Amino acid sequence: MDLNCDLGESFGAWTMGDDVAVLPHVTSVNVACGFHAGDPGVMRRTIAAALRAGAAIGAHPGLPDRQGFGRRAMEVTPDEVYELVVYQTGALAAFAAAAGTHLAHVKPHGALYNMAAARRDLADAIVRAVHDVDAGLALYGLAGSHLVDAADAAGLRAVPEAFADRAYLPDGALVPRSRPDAMIHDVAEAVARAIRMARDRRVRAVDGSDVTLRAETICIHGDGKDAALFAKELRLGLETAGVRVTAPARA
Amino acid sequence: MDLNCDLGESFGAWTMGDDVAVLPHVTSVNVACGFHAGDPGVMRRTIAAALRAGAAIGAHPGLPDRQGFGRRAMEVTPDEVYELVVYQTGALAAFAAAAGTHLAHVKPHGALYNMAAARRDLADAIVRAVHDVDAGLALYGLAGSHLVDAADAAGLRAVPEAFADRAYLPDGALVPRSRPDAMIHDVAEAVARAIRMARDRRVRAVDGSDVTLRAETICIHGDGKDAALFAKELRLGLETAGVRVTAPARA
Amino acid sequence: MDLNCDLGESFGAWTMGDDVAVLPHVTSVNVACGFHAGDPGVMRRTIAAALRAGAAIGAHPGLPDRQGFGRRAMEVTPDEVYELVVYQTGALAAFAAAAGTHLAHVKPHGALYNMAAARRDLADAIVRAVHDVDAGLALYGLAGSHLVDAADAAGLRAVPEAFADRAYLPDGALVPRSRPDAMIHDVAEAVARAIRMARDRRVRAVDGSDVTLRAETICIHGDGKDAALFAKELRLGLETAGVRVTAPARA
Amino acid sequence: MDLNCDLGESFGAWTMGDDVAVLPHVTSVNVACGFHAGDPGVMRRTIAAALRAGAAIGAHPGLPDRQGFGRRAMEVTPDEVYELVVYQTGALAAFAAAAGTHLAHVKPHGALYNMAAARRDLADAIVRAVHDVDAGLALYGLAGSHLVDAADAAGLRAVPEAFADRAYLPDGALVPRSRPDAMIHDVAEAVARAIRMARDRRVRAVDGSDVTLRAETICIHGDGKDAALFAKELRLGLETAGVRVTAPARA
Repeated sequence: MDLNCDLGESFGAWTMGDDVAVLPHVTSVNVACGFHAGDPGVMRRTIAAALRAGAAIGAHPGLPDRQGFGRRAMEVTPDEVYELVVYQTGALAAFAAAAGTHLAHVKPHGALYNMAAARRDLADAIVRAVHDVDAGLALYGLAGSHLVDAADAAGLRAVPEAFADRAYLPDGALVPRSRPDAMIHDVAEAVARAIRMARDRRVRAVDGSDVTLRAETICIHGDGKDAALFAKELRLGLETAGVRVTAPARA
Repeated sequence: MDLNCDLGESFGAWTMGDDVAVLPHVTSVNVACGFHAGDPGVMRRTIAAALRAGAAIGAHPGLPDRQGFGRRAMEVTPDEVYELVVYQTGALAAFAAAAGTHLAHVKPHGALYNMAAARRDLADAIVRAVHDVDAGLALYGLAGSHLVDAADAAGLRAVPEAFADRAYLPDGALVPRSRPDAMIHDVAEAVARAIRMARDRRVRAVDGSDVTLRAETICIHGDGKDAALFAKELRLGLETAGVRVTAPARA
Repeated sequence: MDLNCDLGESFGAWTMGDDVAVLPHVTSVNVACGFHAGDPGVMRRTIAAALRAGAAIGAHPGLPDRQGFGRRAMEVTPDEVYELVVYQTGALAAFAAAAGTHLAHVKPHGALYNMAAARRDLADAIVRAVHDVDAGLALYGLAGSHLVDAADAAGLRAVPEAFADRAYLPDGALVPRSRPDAMIHDVAEAVARAIRMARDRRVRAVDGSDVTLRAETICIHGDGKDAALFAKELRLGLETAGVRVTAPARA
Repeated sequence: MDLNCDLGESFGAWTMGDDVAVLPHVTSVNVACGFHAGDPGVMRRTIAAALRAGAAIGAHPGLPDRQGFGRRAMEVTPDEVYELVVYQTGALAAFAAAAGTHLAHVKPHGALYNMAAARRDLADAIVRAVHDVDAGLALYGLAGSHLVDAADAAGLRAVPEAFADRAYLPDGALVPRSRPDAMIHDVAEAVARAIRMARDRRVRAVDGSDVTLRAETICIHGDGKDAALFAKELRLGLETAGVRVTAPARA
């Protein structure tokens, strides 16, 4: 099981998250590429830090909406989505090359992630973009979503993602954040859920039923103040349970 | 001798220049990368057009100042210059890769070009950036400037640039645009000057003296309304005079 | 009947539309405020030109999406809409004050206009914003839409807008641009429709039925290349038919 | 003596400074206007907070360089400076009007502040902009600088600013931040210097000589983590010494 975290979300004079604290506990990182967060300097320093920590490095492209942090859905066409993924992935790939390494994956950010989960045409556009930049890149997407299906269909390495600290509906979708029961606040419970995801490929839904879930990576939310602690507990819990915590192999 | 032109300077709903008209007459193009002009969609379409026309494709990174079109000098550090060149070159390189081709060169835009001509520390930063992204890329810079020297010193392929329609000072510098005698308005005269640059490596300065100039590319200003006509005349004149017009060989 | 046109849609080095040609024929102008188009310099010069032409000056706030020209819907909250209307209207009002005049109205742009037509909560947010900046401003909105209703309900001067060159559905809505019959391409027909809107408050819908329409202003699309000609014909036709063409009185 | 502080420097999802902690101790605040920092939502909330605290509210316009936080000098023309000050001041004034209050002053930010201190043409452009938006606004500028002179010459209310925690050169200029002795780190010493500025209009320069300084406001740096503590000590010290701490009267 891979543990991934969004990183490099500072911008100019503004700091976000505690990248240094989270890094030792995750196995792959998604680096903001300057559209919704990050800037060329932040990208360069984040790649250097990830490289030192030994984490797999991925691009985290978002919508062109810095003020909204890429969290506001926008009416973009598949062509526009293709282009913004190529652009941002290429920009980050250049920093990786300059640092003597290469990207391992791409994970869309925020509203783009959600739109690609729900709409096959946008998912296909992202898959084409990633494939055209580097067919060896993996693509992270919500387990069970159109994005994973689109990658599978195109022969791109899909890495389905699950959330240890989010509640699930009986159909495998996440409980919307607007609902009071969306989050799993108890760390021990989240760890137990992660172990079950890894070993049994199952998670208990809010109605008590069991949902089957193919997950190869678990998301750590980097902007919460307890992100590092959560990551540490999660990793320790998984490893103690005998789950191997490692980044996905490059295709 | 190479003929180069800035291309892809449209942005969103705004059009600039007549790329289609200029393309048949030039041998290499410098594509804006989204900071001072261009956007991901324009970049994609510009690369497709350049590829069809058979022109060598280069990145044309600029300062992060869209309103000022990258023409306003900014107090940027060498680190910031390094980072913005890596970022923009990488973004364009990804579109080139997606189109099945690769970049041939980098040419800084506007104020960045002028700053890199005048300051060695910024020139060095650009050279390092280009080298770190792809050591096989050529770097276009003002003939006789720090940028060319810095590339030479670092073993990066330098392509010194001259201007057929700009007047020169006795020391080889361009007459500042603020002076009334800065431009050569007569096309026939500009063509004659280009031929002399190519064959004799010399240009007549404003005081009547002869300046030695090592130039391997001549710049066509793409945003003028007679750009295509000027490019056509220049190419015809050079070829009639026996000068081979072709893009620089990749290192 | 008022004739209004979007103006000041240039940005930095990019020009859009032919403001000078359209201005003599319209009675009110909507000036872009720097989010989807325009910049502080363009705003200043556009106000000066409108003032010379004697046109009523309005703010034309848009979504924060320059690359998409404010035409892409975004998932913005009513609070965000309120804030971006206050910001942009205030910025333009300052240029009006500096030029010794004042704003007469506000007309939302593009996707914001459409969203405010369709959603009452966003319409209410715009009405509150306009009212809070200057309760004497008029608010232009699609005839029959939520935006006009919201202004009416709040006691803000509403100016319902119609389109002489757009086809209408039997329920008074515009035929979507995606349909081939969305536009009235014949100028004479558009003029005849405008006269009927002004005199009879009616327009013939695509199914041949008559739609009642309360319209106090007709929109001229400034970015088409025949905008000035269309505006001239429209004004001449209306005046010849005895319709008084003038900006709405300030409340 | 007035105590002023930059406020509202958060942006979108990024927080900067602790506005709530500093507000009770200052008498006037300079609110970022969306170019170098701040956004429409931050501006609205900052004005509401300043209004509750009873502080005088001013606009804090900066260069259009969000990534550089407006701290990088740019080659802008006087016209461009005029326009960006009108724009930003107008935008903030609209939020003040919407909140039932009005602006009291304008203080340029960062590189714009420094450029206006050193260049009379840019200082004049700012003075004209402030005057054209609202001739009753005060203009804060570095004591002894061109900006204060330009305001004085134009009949605009100038408020010369001094720094209690910065060292001064014998000619009244600030010791550049690049020098190790630029800052006064001891709070008690800074307070003593402020008291002397207020009572004797004098400050001890780095060479031990006494400099005459006409200062009506002292700047609190809001982004330091001890800003609130420093503000509190400064205010207490000044009031204990019998100095009345209050915002400048509106002209």
